[in-house]
Amino acid sequence: MSEFSYIKGGITAASGFTVAGVCAHIKAARPDMAMIVSERPAAAAGTFTTNRVQAAPVKLCRDRLLRKSARAIVINSGNANACTGEQGMADAGRMAAVAAEALGIAAEDVLVCSTGTIGVPLPMDKVEGGIKAAAGALSSEGGSDAARAIMTTDTVEKEAALKLTIGGVEVHIGGMAKGAGMIEPNMATMLAFILTDALVDKAALQDCLSAAVAESFNRISVDGDQSTNDTVLFLANGVAGNELLNGDHPDWQIFCDAVRALTKKLAMKIVEDGEGATKVVTVNVRGAACCEDARKAARAVANSLLVKTSWYGGDPNWGRVVDAVGYSGAEVKEDLIDVSYDDVCAVKDGMAAPGASLRELEKVLARREFSLNIDLHLGDGTDTVYTCDCTEEYVRINSEYMT
Amino acid sequence: MSEFSYIKGGITAASGFTVAGVCAHIKAARPDMAMIVSERPAAAAGTFTTNRVQAAPVKLCRDRLLRKSARAIVINSGNANACTGEQGMADAGRMAAVAAEALGIAAEDVLVCSTGTIGVPLPMDKVEGGIKAAAGALSSEGGSDAARAIMTTDTVEKEAALKLTIGGVEVHIGGMAKGAGMIEPNMATMLAFILTDALVDKAALQDCLSAAVAESFNRISVDGDQSTNDTVLFLANGVAGNELLNGDHPDWQIFCDAVRALTKKLAMKIVEDGEGATKVVTVNVRGAACCEDARKAARAVANSLLVKTSWYGGDPNWGRVVDAVGYSGAEVKEDLIDVSYDDVCAVKDGMAAPGASLRELEKVLARREFSLNIDLHLGDGTDTVYTCDCTEEYVRINSEYMT
Repeated sequence: MSEFSYIKGGITAASGFTVAGVCAHIKAARPDMAMIVSERPAAAAGTFTTNRVQAAPVKLCRDRLLRKSARAIVINSGNANACTGEQGMADAGRMAAVAAEALGIAAEDVLVCSTGTIGVPLPMDKVEGGIKAAAGALSSEGGSDAARAIMTTDTVEKEAALKLTIGGVEVHIGGMAKGAGMIEPNMATMLAFILTDALVDKAALQDCLSAAVAESFNRISVDGDQSTNDTVLFLANGVAGNELLNGDHPDWQIFCDAVRALTKKLAMKIVEDGEGATKVVTVNVRGAACCEDARKAARAVANSLLVKTSWYGGDPNWGRVVDAVGYSGAEVKEDLIDVSYDDVCAVKDGMAAPGASLRELEKVLARREFSLNIDLHLGDGTDTVYTCDCTEEYVRINSEYMT
Repeated sequence: MSEFSYIKGGITAASGFTVAGVCAHIKAARPDMAMIVSERPAAAAGTFTTNRVQAAPVKLCRDRLLRKSARAIVINSGNANACTGEQGMADAGRMAAVAAEALGIAAEDVLVCSTGTIGVPLPMDKVEGGIKAAAGALSSEGGSDAARAIMTTDTVEKEAALKLTIGGVEVHIGGMAKGAGMIEPNMATMLAFILTDALVDKAALQDCLSAAVAESFNRISVDGDQSTNDTVLFLANGVAGNELLNGDHPDWQIFCDAVRALTKKLAMKIVEDGEGATKVVTVNVRGAACCEDARKAARAVANSLLVKTSWYGGDPNWGRVVDAVGYSGAEVKEDLIDVSYDDVCAVKDGMAAPGASLRELEKVLARREFSLNIDLHLGDGTDTVYTCDCTEEYVRINSEYMT
């Protein structure tokens, strides 16, 4: 039995936070400025893109997370504030300062995120106006407004929330995420924000978040591109009144399980909303010589344009799957490879499985969600990647999304 | 001044070879069986896919190239004879044996190539009939027929030929290639055949081919997928009557230059015919810390779906370029990166170049061919990849090309 239960809502399911989502007019007539404020100093944790080119707000957040706590996060969409040099760093700092002034808190207690077009300086007059407007619109009911304000090419807002009991006290964890393209394991053009009213030790909070991200946001792939801005932030304000949670607490594992489940749910919402996607596919690799080999094989398959377009066509083209496994860099013995779609075997010992039914395979491929299971029969290495198909609509979106 | 000159025609520009391209009916009503026969034993060289899953004919050719010479090549399209196990190896051997019998030569002197769908056993009755028909249709004028018979999703046949003088004797080199999708550096679903009437030492011929392939077929990318069947074969039959060419011959470098030029020309024809492609782009990276870093950066950019779709949209979206460089694994200092499209600067010191004109950049992106030049300003490493844009048509082709 699950030790936690999902509830309605998003980030504001956690008590003691007020949030807002407003129009700063960075984008034409769509919400593009979100703000999150904790009523008291919150323990803060974060994970960030591994891209060697990192946006200014990423650098700012990395630095500010060295502090004991944080009070607020300000987030704009429409402009990534990446590849903007010293001006970009100054602008990210200014975003925090303007928010701090409006909120009456210290600038160092404000975290900043941006997402959108790369290489264009922030329109700071609009940004500053937006931040002030957001500060004036804060509400404990503003979760969905905020979730909409962080969207770029997303078609739906992505929220989830759950509750659980820690030492007899009910605590809540709420989250929101954005991301639809430039999505690749090890983060993507994605932002996610997790808030909890539980009291959690800062170092433990970081461990919990890092482990959860490894199993969720770092295992999704839409197009293999990895962004300059990926950020997941986690604030814990302790308003629920529980005993301090850390790795020694008897309920620690339950809390970590809940966070992992929530991040997985948000990550899957990103895949489901993959630009132009019509199908969600779980690529499971097992039997690899080691887990790193399993990772290579799963990602080569999940990122193969030929595999992704065959899914779109409803074609159980396992040849392209075996081909991608072959060039993945993983150790492979061709005549040991088995492949199935859901529970229908396609390949046995590296060849078309005897009696494999194209009709049965096509039935699986016609599903909105299915799994592709690859067994290399070489060892114990396993890995999983969640991904989607590649469609003409993906190309249309990304050829029309202008600089 | 060039030491060689292009001439009309393809593989049959080389004397002493007869070739054919016929319908074996593996595919519906399109030529799908080609044959190349040298009137005398020819020195033979080859390069092959690095995919760990290799088609049966690749294994056969690797083995037979250990011999002193070869006499013929038989090639089918429509079926890759890959992931076909022991039956596949037997079928590849049978293709050679049937050709040998029809030609009155030894089976071991026949090389075999296949391209097409993976994982389906060859329809050997049709294949055998096709081989016999090809043997009956051999002609010194059959180059274009053969070039058409090896096509799969190609829209045009790919041929080139040139002549040069070696020790006062005119010699000819002709080539043909196929390939449009599943194209990635280090070979692709591509086949190429180079024939020359020059007399060339076998070991020298292999060195010459390997060096030429490294600069041509291994530097093109359509979609980042690498096939199980890639093969380039080079036959030299000595019919021209020149002195034996080897590394010590004074004209050796001229010969190698000519082969490199011919393979480059054929490789560019593959990129130009990239599935659904509307633009050909040369990605140049320089200033990398080392050549391996330059290679990583160039390939990350050339294979980025977001970059390729932005080209399709005519959008000089340099943010996606810098982003791809950042995740390529190459050493990168963000504030040292320069990017230009042809001679129009887009990025200087990691930011939008001062005075960069979007209109001037868009003019470059509107061209059918342009270069993307990236300078990392870290060292002397350079690399170049030839690639194309990614279009809705690519997705359509590959979602409809059925198992």
